[in-house]
Amino acid sequence: MKIVCLGSGNVASHLTAAFKGAGMEIVQVWSRNLSHADTLAASLNTQAIADLKLVDKNADLYLIAVKDDAIKDVAFSLFGVQGLVVHTSGATSIDVLKGLAQYGVLYPLQTFSKHKDLNLSGTPFCLEASSEEGFNLMQQLGSAIGAAIYRIDSEQRKILHLAAVFACNFSNHLYHLANTVLASNNLKFDLLRPLIMETALKVQHDVPIKVQTGPAVR
Amino acid sequence: MKIVCLGSGNVASHLTAAFKGAGMEIVQVWSRNLSHADTLAASLNTQAIADLKLVDKNADLYLIAVKDDAIKDVAFSLFGVQGLVVHTSGATSIDVLKGLAQYGVLYPLQTFSKHKDLNLSGTPFCLEASSEEGFNLMQQLGSAIGAAIYRIDSEQRKILHLAAVFACNFSNHLYHLANTVLASNNLKFDLLRPLIMETALKVQHDVPIKVQTGPAVR
Repeated sequence: MKIVCLGSGNVASHLTAAFKGAGMEIVQVWSRNLSHADTLAASLNTQAIADLKLVDKNADLYLIAVKDDAIKDVAFSLFGVQGLVVHTSGATSIDVLKGLAQYGVLYPLQTFSKHKDLNLSGTPFCLEASSEEGFNLMQQLGSAIGAAIYRIDSEQRKILHLAAVFACNFSNHLYHLANTVLASNNLKFDLLRPLIMETALKVQHDVPIKVQTGPAVR
Repeated sequence: MKIVCLGSGNVASHLTAAFKGAGMEIVQVWSRNLSHADTLAASLNTQAIADLKLVDKNADLYLIAVKDDAIKDVAFSLFGVQGLVVHTSGATSIDVLKGLAQYGVLYPLQTFSKHKDLNLSGTPFCLEASSEEGFNLMQQLGSAIGAAIYRIDSEQRKILHLAAVFACNFSNHLYHLANTVLASNNLKFDLLRPLIMETALKVQHDVPIKVQTGPAVR
């Protein structure tokens, strides 16, 4: 499978590394910023481009992993390609890609950090496609890296994204508030780390309402 | 070390199991409810009591692990004992034990579930004592089970407890809200579990402000 990656951020980096590891061919990395494209392309041993006109027209998959508000512009430049064009955004409808020959959404429901390796095995891949053929291609790709495949339409994905912001970003913000209070009282964040870990572990095999214990209950 | 446990809930159960595992002798379990005392005492192969007048006066440590508003009553019944009397509450001052010969606080900063085993190794033990001798006894006990020992006074503990409620209970409540939204849209909580896990993992070796990524940033 030949893949062109459009974007060079955390999502682009983690996905392309995993896909390459599973034997896919990343033929190009595009970024508006050539040095960003270069860095990622070098790690994948492939070509970096900063001009959308240079995109290879014969890839099987075009993976758009850019900021939400840039998806439309990137997609527009791909009009005419026959490969499957997908974006990776939780908060963006599939309709932004309408007009392309084949299109879809590959939303990996995970938090990606620049400097932290992540095994993508088990990561939910929330897929939506304009055709069954497109869906199958993404399913094949996800299965190759051990992702958990879900069929999620744009309406559901909007809700899922909201839930993810609650569970991930708001929780992390709470950790940050806790750390701020601790730091201003000369207390180490280390004190809270085991509790944070256990709180997340507890809901891996149970639902949150059943495991509400800890400080607030005592 | 001879220990009397006053209380039979999650904290009492996990601590006594760990202490017994490290070779300490749990000589009695008290609970206002005899059948609760019986259940825990049976698992520890020791005596259950429901009458505070029957408490063994010759223990080295009296571990009070009851609801915050019951600590004072239990402590009052222990007046006259020479062993170290400690409570395990994050939100209660050490002063509630004033008048006892030796007293202190052993606040294990972790969330304990009834039906989930927990390795207490690495759990922060936040200790405060009326004497160095008392502190050393708790330190010895904590070290025996691999706990991380911290000296935390009552003022600091109040702040720490607040931070723990933010990081643990509020986060779990966010997980619950997310699950509610998902469930009412026929989406599985499984979709969020890897994200929740990774969000907690990320702050184990970094501070929260540095790792704020994920859905909300994209």
